[in-house]
Amino acid sequence: MGQTLLKNGYIVSMNETEQVYDGGSVLVQDDKILAVGKVDPKLVAPDAEVIELNGRYVLPGFVNTHVHTSQQISRGVGDDVDFITWLHKRMWPYESNMTEEDSYYSTLMCCLELIRSGVTSFAEPGGQFVSGMVKGVTEAGLRAKLAKSVMDCGEGLPKIWQRTADQELEQQEDDLKRYHNSADGRVQIWFGLRTIFNNTDDLIIRTKEMADRYGVGIHMHVAEAKSEVEYTQEVYGEPTVTHLNRLGVLDKNLLAVHTVWLTNEEIRMFREHDVKVSHNPASAMRVLGFAKIPRMLREGVCVSIGTDGASSSNRMDIVDEMWLTSLIHKGWRLDSTVVPSEDVLRMATINGARALLDDRIYGSLTPGKKADLIVINPHGPSMMPVNDKIAALVTAMHSTNIESTMCDGKWLMRDRKILTLDEEAILKEASARGAAIYDRAGIHLPDRFPVTKIAD
Amino acid sequence: MGQTLLKNGYIVSMNETEQVYDGGSVLVQDDKILAVGKVDPKLVAPDAEVIELNGRYVLPGFVNTHVHTSQQISRGVGDDVDFITWLHKRMWPYESNMTEEDSYYSTLMCCLELIRSGVTSFAEPGGQFVSGMVKGVTEAGLRAKLAKSVMDCGEGLPKIWQRTADQELEQQEDDLKRYHNSADGRVQIWFGLRTIFNNTDDLIIRTKEMADRYGVGIHMHVAEAKSEVEYTQEVYGEPTVTHLNRLGVLDKNLLAVHTVWLTNEEIRMFREHDVKVSHNPASAMRVLGFAKIPRMLREGVCVSIGTDGASSSNRMDIVDEMWLTSLIHKGWRLDSTVVPSEDVLRMATINGARALLDDRIYGSLTPGKKADLIVINPHGPSMMPVNDKIAALVTAMHSTNIESTMCDGKWLMRDRKILTLDEEAILKEASARGAAIYDRAGIHLPDRFPVTKIAD
Repeated sequence: MGQTLLKNGYIVSMNETEQVYDGGSVLVQDDKILAVGKVDPKLVAPDAEVIELNGRYVLPGFVNTHVHTSQQISRGVGDDVDFITWLHKRMWPYESNMTEEDSYYSTLMCCLELIRSGVTSFAEPGGQFVSGMVKGVTEAGLRAKLAKSVMDCGEGLPKIWQRTADQELEQQEDDLKRYHNSADGRVQIWFGLRTIFNNTDDLIIRTKEMADRYGVGIHMHVAEAKSEVEYTQEVYGEPTVTHLNRLGVLDKNLLAVHTVWLTNEEIRMFREHDVKVSHNPASAMRVLGFAKIPRMLREGVCVSIGTDGASSSNRMDIVDEMWLTSLIHKGWRLDSTVVPSEDVLRMATINGARALLDDRIYGSLTPGKKADLIVINPHGPSMMPVNDKIAALVTAMHSTNIESTMCDGKWLMRDRKILTLDEEAILKEASARGAAIYDRAGIHLPDRFPVTKIAD
Repeated sequence: MGQTLLKNGYIVSMNETEQVYDGGSVLVQDDKILAVGKVDPKLVAPDAEVIELNGRYVLPGFVNTHVHTSQQISRGVGDDVDFITWLHKRMWPYESNMTEEDSYYSTLMCCLELIRSGVTSFAEPGGQFVSGMVKGVTEAGLRAKLAKSVMDCGEGLPKIWQRTADQELEQQEDDLKRYHNSADGRVQIWFGLRTIFNNTDDLIIRTKEMADRYGVGIHMHVAEAKSEVEYTQEVYGEPTVTHLNRLGVLDKNLLAVHTVWLTNEEIRMFREHDVKVSHNPASAMRVLGFAKIPRMLREGVCVSIGTDGASSSNRMDIVDEMWLTSLIHKGWRLDSTVVPSEDVLRMATINGARALLDDRIYGSLTPGKKADLIVINPHGPSMMPVNDKIAALVTAMHSTNIESTMCDGKWLMRDRKILTLDEEAILKEASARGAAIYDRAGIHLPDRFPVTKIAD
């Protein structure tokens, strides 16, 4: 692959000292970063590709810590409906009517949006077909922690999803042996736990044991809805996180998603056990409520950002989620100083890498780390003038300002053109498959306005 | 100008019956809409320009009911700081150091973003130089209600802004006589009232009399911050809206912006007097709080959407504000069914036109109305698959999906290219002027991360 020198940019390293290099460079060799800031000319090979940045930003690639790739082609399936309709009449029929091939195309479609919004690494909490997801991510060139959607109890589940703890663990171990560290190590397999509604204590405890044995993480929706903590209070006599603590699964390899309904004591448990949080503001605002992010940050909990799935948040765009993260807590706390832009940038980069247990591998522009980076062009009336260079990345930037995305030293997108995938072919095939699943599942969305079909 | 036929589209008319025409057409003649839906071929002139939409959407142009054009080039001036710092150390020094020429360039810069996000008509609550704004809007080809920022009292105001009620009214009347109905009627002059902190009862009452006499509207920030209603409670013994009601200014020509801190009784006053609301979710979330939009809609208050200014909400993008509007009330009320997508579309189109007293002139695709419309191309991984065609416009669309914008029968943007303004020249000049104002005003933004300047 050789060398690439990105020169004369505004380099936001997100390294340990959070150094910014104005007029600086990044030198990439093969899949790694060789130098950052002022690059010694002696390091640059004569045949290096030299890219003049002309003041453009370079940042570490964004890390999206909660992405339902299999829901991408269901987009719009449950807009503006209540939760029970969403789950029982829309999502379960939809997901239970997907094939492995559908999952593959849904993943490809999702990867297009991830790459276009500057994501280089993500975590998938679990569709039904890990094999389909692995295939899609491998072709896209992204990094991912993939998991199966794991359920061994719960009311009203479609019949094909009624499985035992043994079956679920066995399949995950099988997936892990087959796919872990595939695609040059970009694809890793994690364990999944859907929610405490759908997971027995036995499964939760054994999942933790296996995750530790294989040295991987656990991806779980935790304390997302008010009804969940009411349920755990009733069934276990304690709220979700307190119960998980009792089971011994609060640990540095637990990625807890949403985490809206936590007591202050439970936030301290997260801090103490270094549990990682994935904050999904759009999805949370749609129905869950406001996670106590300002308090978590103050307590030193590692908070990262996720987009959730297209069936719950539609815009699968981490740049929009960064903007939301910077806004909603200010409004909710009536304090315009909480969750400042620099915190949001940390969440979307180095904290994301920490959440995926990879902060020694990527998450900052640091010599020796993987070359996962993005080039941002602020030119245009939606971001200019750029008076506060760091804040502008959070408060004004759109994903269309992300010009190029590199993962593992390879350009996935350059000048807004996707290089690893055939975008037009995927858009066509994935859309057709989405519509076909609606048909098979018998999902009919009512017209919101009266529609007259005009014949030619 | 002749005829333009837009054919074979998904026509979302927002007319009285809210009819959608799938495979329909829109016929434009000069500045007006001649036919919508199934167009009689006999109406189409032989030399009409025919545009094949290939399923693209056509909607009425969006109406942005609160836009500080003069703040556009200050973008980033007060991110993440407290309100007093924002106002006294940043905004007042900034605005009081602007020239008329700065205001003109700031308006042009703002118009670029408005056109790119599908806005065809907007209301400006008041900069210092109406003349500069008029010039910019005239050249851009947009419609606008322009007002002066009017203040006749208040603590800590810069000296050049210390004026009497007489002076303020006189200048507004002068602007009105000079500019009202200029630019083929696209530019109108309204009266402005900044806030109850900065306006005496005498000025408020006389403003209402003059607005009625000239048959125009009044644009005012109303009950925006909690501190405001605490202030009015202390000074007048009643909250802002109750006080305005006592002064007799609640009427159909009052455009009340933000309206976060209203009692339920005050919402009924709005309904009774047909006061128009401009909801600005990003700006409100940044510090003001949550306006009771679900209740206002239920009560039948006319709620529209605004972006505020780039110094308070940065993204001056009504499409993003539509998305926020659909999200934040669900999260705040913990009810995913409130403020559905069709309500949001009404707010951004026909309600906007009503708020600007122009619903007989534009706001829907109706024969006889002005040809203010946008063409939306959903193609791409951020919006596809489009399973719920109406919801997708609110929950998944970005402003980059807006391909073309027409106002008064004239294309302002076509295929994402701005036709009325020299975009590159404006970006350059306006950015330089923005930076120069920072210098003159002595505003220095602290570095958020340590910055090393690398010399060549």
